[in-house]
Amino acid sequence: MSNQDGRKRVVITNVSPQVESGKYPARRAIGESIDFSADVFGDGHDVVAAAVIYKHESEENWNEVLMQFAGNDHWEANWSPDKEGFYQYQFTGWIDHFTTWKKGLVKKYDAHQDIAVEIKIGIELLEEASALAEAQHKSDFQQWIEFFNNNTDYQASVNLAISDELAAAMSKIRYTDRITVFQKTFQLEVERKKAAFSSWYELFPRSASPEPEQHGTFKDVTALLPKVAKMGFDTLYFPPIHPIGEMKRKGKNNSLVPSETDPGSPWAIGNRLGGHKAVHPELGEIEDFEELVGEAKKLGIEIAMDIAYQCAPDHPYVKEHPQWFKWRPDGTVQYAENPPKRYEDILPFDFETHDWENLWNELKSVIDFWIEKGVSVFRIDNPHTKAFGFWEWMIGEVRKQHPRIIFLAEAFTRPRVMERLAKIGFNQSYTYFTWRNSKWEIEQYLNELTKTDQQYYFRPNFWPNTPDILPHHLVEGGENAHITRFILAATLSSNYGLYGPVYEYGVNTPHPGKEEYTDNEKYEIKHWDWDRYSRTRDIITRVNKIRKENPALQTTWNINFAETSNDMVICYTKADPHSNNLLIIAVNLDFFNTQGANIKVPLHKLGMHWEQSYRVRDMLSGELYDWHGEYNYVQMNPYEMPAHIFKIEPLN
Amino acid sequence: MSNQDGRKRVVITNVSPQVESGKYPARRAIGESIDFSADVFGDGHDVVAAAVIYKHESEENWNEVLMQFAGNDHWEANWSPDKEGFYQYQFTGWIDHFTTWKKGLVKKYDAHQDIAVEIKIGIELLEEASALAEAQHKSDFQQWIEFFNNNTDYQASVNLAISDELAAAMSKIRYTDRITVFQKTFQLEVERKKAAFSSWYELFPRSASPEPEQHGTFKDVTALLPKVAKMGFDTLYFPPIHPIGEMKRKGKNNSLVPSETDPGSPWAIGNRLGGHKAVHPELGEIEDFEELVGEAKKLGIEIAMDIAYQCAPDHPYVKEHPQWFKWRPDGTVQYAENPPKRYEDILPFDFETHDWENLWNELKSVIDFWIEKGVSVFRIDNPHTKAFGFWEWMIGEVRKQHPRIIFLAEAFTRPRVMERLAKIGFNQSYTYFTWRNSKWEIEQYLNELTKTDQQYYFRPNFWPNTPDILPHHLVEGGENAHITRFILAATLSSNYGLYGPVYEYGVNTPHPGKEEYTDNEKYEIKHWDWDRYSRTRDIITRVNKIRKENPALQTTWNINFAETSNDMVICYTKADPHSNNLLIIAVNLDFFNTQGANIKVPLHKLGMHWEQSYRVRDMLSGELYDWHGEYNYVQMNPYEMPAHIFKIEPLN
Repeated sequence: MSNQDGRKRVVITNVSPQVESGKYPARRAIGESIDFSADVFGDGHDVVAAAVIYKHESEENWNEVLMQFAGNDHWEANWSPDKEGFYQYQFTGWIDHFTTWKKGLVKKYDAHQDIAVEIKIGIELLEEASALAEAQHKSDFQQWIEFFNNNTDYQASVNLAISDELAAAMSKIRYTDRITVFQKTFQLEVERKKAAFSSWYELFPRSASPEPEQHGTFKDVTALLPKVAKMGFDTLYFPPIHPIGEMKRKGKNNSLVPSETDPGSPWAIGNRLGGHKAVHPELGEIEDFEELVGEAKKLGIEIAMDIAYQCAPDHPYVKEHPQWFKWRPDGTVQYAENPPKRYEDILPFDFETHDWENLWNELKSVIDFWIEKGVSVFRIDNPHTKAFGFWEWMIGEVRKQHPRIIFLAEAFTRPRVMERLAKIGFNQSYTYFTWRNSKWEIEQYLNELTKTDQQYYFRPNFWPNTPDILPHHLVEGGENAHITRFILAATLSSNYGLYGPVYEYGVNTPHPGKEEYTDNEKYEIKHWDWDRYSRTRDIITRVNKIRKENPALQTTWNINFAETSNDMVICYTKADPHSNNLLIIAVNLDFFNTQGANIKVPLHKLGMHWEQSYRVRDMLSGELYDWHGEYNYVQMNPYEMPAHIFKIEPLN
Repeated sequence: MSNQDGRKRVVITNVSPQVESGKYPARRAIGESIDFSADVFGDGHDVVAAAVIYKHESEENWNEVLMQFAGNDHWEANWSPDKEGFYQYQFTGWIDHFTTWKKGLVKKYDAHQDIAVEIKIGIELLEEASALAEAQHKSDFQQWIEFFNNNTDYQASVNLAISDELAAAMSKIRYTDRITVFQKTFQLEVERKKAAFSSWYELFPRSASPEPEQHGTFKDVTALLPKVAKMGFDTLYFPPIHPIGEMKRKGKNNSLVPSETDPGSPWAIGNRLGGHKAVHPELGEIEDFEELVGEAKKLGIEIAMDIAYQCAPDHPYVKEHPQWFKWRPDGTVQYAENPPKRYEDILPFDFETHDWENLWNELKSVIDFWIEKGVSVFRIDNPHTKAFGFWEWMIGEVRKQHPRIIFLAEAFTRPRVMERLAKIGFNQSYTYFTWRNSKWEIEQYLNELTKTDQQYYFRPNFWPNTPDILPHHLVEGGENAHITRFILAATLSSNYGLYGPVYEYGVNTPHPGKEEYTDNEKYEIKHWDWDRYSRTRDIITRVNKIRKENPALQTTWNINFAETSNDMVICYTKADPHSNNLLIIAVNLDFFNTQGANIKVPLHKLGMHWEQSYRVRDMLSGELYDWHGEYNYVQMNPYEMPAHIFKIEPLN
């Protein structure tokens, strides 16, 4: 029997969000709202009230959002944080004696019972409230008390009791010693807007030369920046730019026997010239890279760097820190393998080394080094093959100093592992979107990402292709498939990325028996004629513009699927209530045939009436349609445009 | 970067059971097994192992149950505690380097790769293990190491590597410094068997006289005990036995105007003769009650006492502790009300009183008083109208001293409130069974109770009727309905109860417009002729015997429903794997017509083959049937017997 708790009669449980029972913060980006919910109830029949209170790390006082009753003892609140950084939040609840009294009073009055004593009880409640009210409100309470005391017209007293002004005044009173506070305080991390809204473009700098057969340089990439900016991308991501291992180097098409001119895979990092803090000499100097970063920034583009924590056999670390690798009884270093497959050009670090603290510090120093050079976005290669504890520590430490740094996890692996990486700090994650094709698959997957607890920690970044993955449908569906899958990625998820220019030009010859490009750019230098017309690029440019102009496309959580009468047509709405930006997106999933469908727009989820008339403007084609109610018809020819991106325009 | 954690590569999450994140214990009774599960995984491709460790409060060392991999990074374990009291349990996981090595070795050997170096790595692993092994096992390790060192036949080395004996020896080695332990230690409370398996009979002692019109006494009840025992009940529950309030006393049928001879409701507790620690004088002396408790015990019956924490207006507490009640401005004490309804014969305690600590202590002392008199089971009246904090404290304190005391929560209220009362300590709970009639409703409800987290804290007690509830189907369905609903209660739930003798005699006249008995025993003295034949009583007696003889009916969690071809026929299996006690129960839900159905017995959930032949014995009728496979036919005439309780007997 401790302190004052005995008189706190409200119970709070089943609170959300809570990531790993509060061990990790929930996350939102600036501009995104967040839903809170909890079961809140007391004993008996008294009326209960509940609130979420929150406080930014820079603030001293708690702010409050009242929760709304949602049935079955469940309460909900919604709030949009407006500062980057960490917030604390708590769930609170209390017995609302005033509302309890008011309800009883009205019931008794309606049942023609005498309410003289009830009015007196009300006066006691108001006197208690008056004592707690702020000075400028006390006179209001005194007036009301006087009215109840002197008035003999019960109807007038009941009218005062149920008045909005009295309710408003009472809702400000807090009987602090009777408020239950949930036993755990939670954290909310608010990230910069780019964490939630980004358009990535991946290219190999060594393929950036305007001259065929020449090794591209950072300067070549700098010259290409206006073209990338014109397409509407804001994040330009390069495979590793470090010296490439010369030992066990891979040749064309992953051959074990390279020719003398084969450049090797950029992911085989390090040689006699340096490792993770050096640049491959043929790309230029570090200063060229810094200039590239600076020029990109002027065009609104951030450079994303690939961090692959692994070494070629001739990486300097192997000699300088042999204890960071696993040595085999034959005196060789353990290379990467997934028996019986071997990857002899790559040595993994041994995260069970006794020298793990120095290893961790060195790996973190790689990030610090490139932040110093202006990099603000890191795409982490295969994080699921390195210790979770390392990522949690490293990302935490880096973002403590540089809270605006963004980490993207390139983990294509099992669900629990991907979820964990997100929980422990990665701001964005690659996803299974690449293999989700049918309407049912896409709806299931998006609902899992956006309507479950995953939304509080796992932020998807949708990629239709990568240098490692050429999915079957891009092979079979050609240009139309490239366009359709791009539109899906860019409208289902507010973060997406493409590996180009193969994508714009529809390069899609697979390596036999593999879900991968043949003559892969990973193992050779390519040359691209950036001035050649591409229908895909044209549509990319239009959609990126639409994304920038429509806040509803700048968050992922606001999606709702519409029923359609045809499984080849998928339809979803995206809404930004603050700007009243309401979109209906329909996509033909058939890459070869025109498909039409009756769609049932979930108007109530857009805050509209189910019988309403409205105008929709297709932002891709510019066409206008007058629609009425939920059921409407759409039709799309994939050879013209496989999608509609409708904006709802009010009808006067 | 703290301590050795950096090298612990395994993550544990999504652990179950955990009641309110471990704030409250999970619960099982002696004889019941409990399922544990968790997501356990590491980075990369190494093989992972997981275990639940546990320790009784009386033990110093941890015991271990290895978890089994169940797909998708999920692991499961099952264990049957054998001591009453509190256990701690933890979830642990680690990288299994030996199994990882073994799998790689076999894959490389099968792919005809050289395994010389792999054998050497194996030797290193065995040397490490040998150092950690118990003394008597070290020589085994030395032999194996020697074999690997000297043997040149790789097939023989692989055979040793994959041998069961080596696996068994390695499975005993624990690399303590690399084991991840989930951050929270949980509690499991193991209750005595009666918490899980009990058959309750409720009667009004004042109706126990063999003489019509006479007030029954404790001695009369003592005389009835052999009849209750013969029916097979083990818990005899009385409405409150305290002095009944004389002020505002209710008359027959809840009348506000009692006659002078009306005895009043036993729940209006207390008058000038005493309160919760006194007995109603017409029932006898406290010594008579103690004798009754003692005689009952000899017959295997425990007396359950009704605790209603509320007062008649003339209860001594009102004068002695006026601060424990809510006083209205007109100088009266607030009576119970749910506006506009009033219950003026009952005054609730004010749990927001400033004197709450003394109130709590006094209320607890009531329980202590009756424990002193031999009571070991308490049925708590309307716990949902008293503060949750009080119950948590009171039950915790009482059971700390008397861990075998059982509390049943009589809360017929909203789901979250009922769940909470169970979490904070009630051992058993009344349920919604009383209103679950159709096959779909019953299946849904039982699956919610037994297949969700509720099973870890909410233990149902099924009542077909109570003095407060005469459900419509007992009115409409007459004797057949009474028999059917009893069989359902007694076989769906291992705890059940009946309010009799109205039940055996099928008394079922409702009060007009109410789901309640007319001429209710709550407000008047009844007389029952216990020697009159009752078909219902006969079947109760048979089923209670079957319950005692079949362990599968002594726990609630082991139910699985069978598909049936007829919605009027419900079918379920109950299994006790330890004793190989396997039951199939079919019940006709139609009170008036014979119904038959093809049923699909889930044989795999009984550990049987789907094509197996077997014999079933109906323990109600004694009949034998030879069945084959999953699909079989049953038919029941409610006027003969509305159910089969089949026991599966092996066929030689």
